[in-house]
Amino acid sequence: MGTEQFERLKSELAERAIKVRKYIFSKVDGIHLEPADLRTAVTDYLRYGGKMLRPGVLLFSCGAVGGNEETALPAAAAIELFHTWTLVHDDIIDQDEKRRGQDALHHRYYKKACQNLDLNLTDEQARHYGQSISILTGDTQHGLAISLLTELFFANGVDPKVVLLLIRELDYTVLNTLVSGETLDVLYSRLPIEKLTEAQIKAMLWGKTGALYEFAGRAGALIGLNTADLHHPYVQAISSFTSKCGLAFQLLDDILGIIGDEKKLGKPVGSDIREGKKTIIVFQALKHANQQQRKKLLNGLGNNFISSSDYTEIVELIQELGGIEFTKNIAHTYLTEALEALTIIPQSKFKDLLETWAHYMINRES
Amino acid sequence: MGTEQFERLKSELAERAIKVRKYIFSKVDGIHLEPADLRTAVTDYLRYGGKMLRPGVLLFSCGAVGGNEETALPAAAAIELFHTWTLVHDDIIDQDEKRRGQDALHHRYYKKACQNLDLNLTDEQARHYGQSISILTGDTQHGLAISLLTELFFANGVDPKVVLLLIRELDYTVLNTLVSGETLDVLYSRLPIEKLTEAQIKAMLWGKTGALYEFAGRAGALIGLNTADLHHPYVQAISSFTSKCGLAFQLLDDILGIIGDEKKLGKPVGSDIREGKKTIIVFQALKHANQQQRKKLLNGLGNNFISSSDYTEIVELIQELGGIEFTKNIAHTYLTEALEALTIIPQSKFKDLLETWAHYMINRES
Repeated sequence: MGTEQFERLKSELAERAIKVRKYIFSKVDGIHLEPADLRTAVTDYLRYGGKMLRPGVLLFSCGAVGGNEETALPAAAAIELFHTWTLVHDDIIDQDEKRRGQDALHHRYYKKACQNLDLNLTDEQARHYGQSISILTGDTQHGLAISLLTELFFANGVDPKVVLLLIRELDYTVLNTLVSGETLDVLYSRLPIEKLTEAQIKAMLWGKTGALYEFAGRAGALIGLNTADLHHPYVQAISSFTSKCGLAFQLLDDILGIIGDEKKLGKPVGSDIREGKKTIIVFQALKHANQQQRKKLLNGLGNNFISSSDYTEIVELIQELGGIEFTKNIAHTYLTEALEALTIIPQSKFKDLLETWAHYMINRES
Repeated sequence: MGTEQFERLKSELAERAIKVRKYIFSKVDGIHLEPADLRTAVTDYLRYGGKMLRPGVLLFSCGAVGGNEETALPAAAAIELFHTWTLVHDDIIDQDEKRRGQDALHHRYYKKACQNLDLNLTDEQARHYGQSISILTGDTQHGLAISLLTELFFANGVDPKVVLLLIRELDYTVLNTLVSGETLDVLYSRLPIEKLTEAQIKAMLWGKTGALYEFAGRAGALIGLNTADLHHPYVQAISSFTSKCGLAFQLLDDILGIIGDEKKLGKPVGSDIREGKKTIIVFQALKHANQQQRKKLLNGLGNNFISSSDYTEIVELIQELGGIEFTKNIAHTYLTEALEALTIIPQSKFKDLLETWAHYMINRES
């Protein structure tokens, strides 16, 4: 896969990102939301940027089965907003202060509260205010995402049965998987690694990312075909494709979280180690570590006060023990399987884009 | 309205509460949710009890327009779960440690985390764990509530257009109003009362409670008639009825929050004063206070460290200045208007129940 193809993909994604953002902003303009902080907060993360990989692949999937992308636009907007509320709530839970190179939402409104002298808050109260605004912002985005799906019927004439199916898939199956993934991630990071298996970690990773990507492909295909038949071969092929790509994406995310470029990522590298996140990388490294190496690794894992030079040593050790390489290989296997799933889809500009997108998912630097 | 009618109402409500709970528990049984904490947390507040006034009035409304209550059962379950997620998130935001006489969810899982030695958490980390579980539990309940609405079509054959309308109403109009009400409540409690008007406070109160009650009546009527026509006179009459009763309910809630019986309420009385909540009661009392009384009131309002004897004095002062009486009168006006709205609905057992329910909303002690 050459640079030229990636550049073309990026420009196709950017074109759709503009449309999706415009659509969301136009919808938010019509909402009655008070106070002003809450209103602005709903779209803050969208203004921060983001590659919009989920709406992009949803629209490509719709096109690849012969559908009209315009019809699926409310679903593309919905999946981005749905993803956004999970980020907003996760940032509170993970206590991350940065998102896309800017302040995480709870941190942004904590700072704003500190500056508002009318409110007269202590530092702790201001922190709580930032968290409260973030909880409610995520809730609003969640509701807005679902209500945008109803627009598929009200504005774009998609079969209401298809829309109800999408809503149930997203707000039940996907949400429960996603929330379980996130909760297990929190829990696992506090548990000693001996208590976990590689299969448990993979299931947690799939929950965190794969489920929503699977939905993106499935939704695009169902809307494109205007069918509620989950067993339609195209629907199955594309769901399987985006599901596997989503898992590959998460594996690369974990790799970038250890050896990525902070400037390109827009967030600090190393927090996964410091927070004791149980990634496949760490799991694999520990498997091949001798007693001394194991001690060193476990000493750094979940240690918030680790020095920068100790951190570098740990990263080198992880690489030496094959943690990164092993994880890259799994990601490649998923990519191959994903592309195989796509073979029954007829050739088209959209299928090309899906294939390039799959390669991009594990070749990106941010 | 006599005791006998209230007793009959209570038994009719209790009968439906059992059905609604059973329905929700059966649905939660089928969910894949990990870890165990999250799974239990989803139904904890339902196990605590609760009068289920919202599902009750939804089912009565369905019956009052000639519909079959059984058809509306998924919507009754949905509105209770929807209400529940707002309680779970509000308890984090309001830092309340009690709900229905038991531990608020974030407090419950904070305590559980303290006891789990495997996790090895500091007190602060355990608090954060409790909050994280509560944020995600609320999110899950929110998604589950919406997915239960889809069952109206998938299991009960309601017109899918009606179901999509209900979803849009609940997750867009109602949610935005509710979240705005809650955010303004937080914000107002930090602002000096001079910055606020009575109209602003009423709008905030309606947002917090009226909007969801309005939806309860509207949803029951739309399902009962199997119509998506929001302008149907029965739909309008019942929406207006439950909306006004909801506001009356919130006004009584504010009264009970100051002079209620802690044992009956299952939560501490006085926190509204200590947190500086801007209620109509306080607003009215301040309007008629002389300089000295005003100083006394403002000194107690938002003062977390107020002594028990000072608190008693403040409550007496509020009563002397007519704050409670004035608020009761507004609640009665809303009740009268609500009952007027109901006149076009034909007489039936369900209409009787709606009328008794309206009286109960402002005569309850908990």
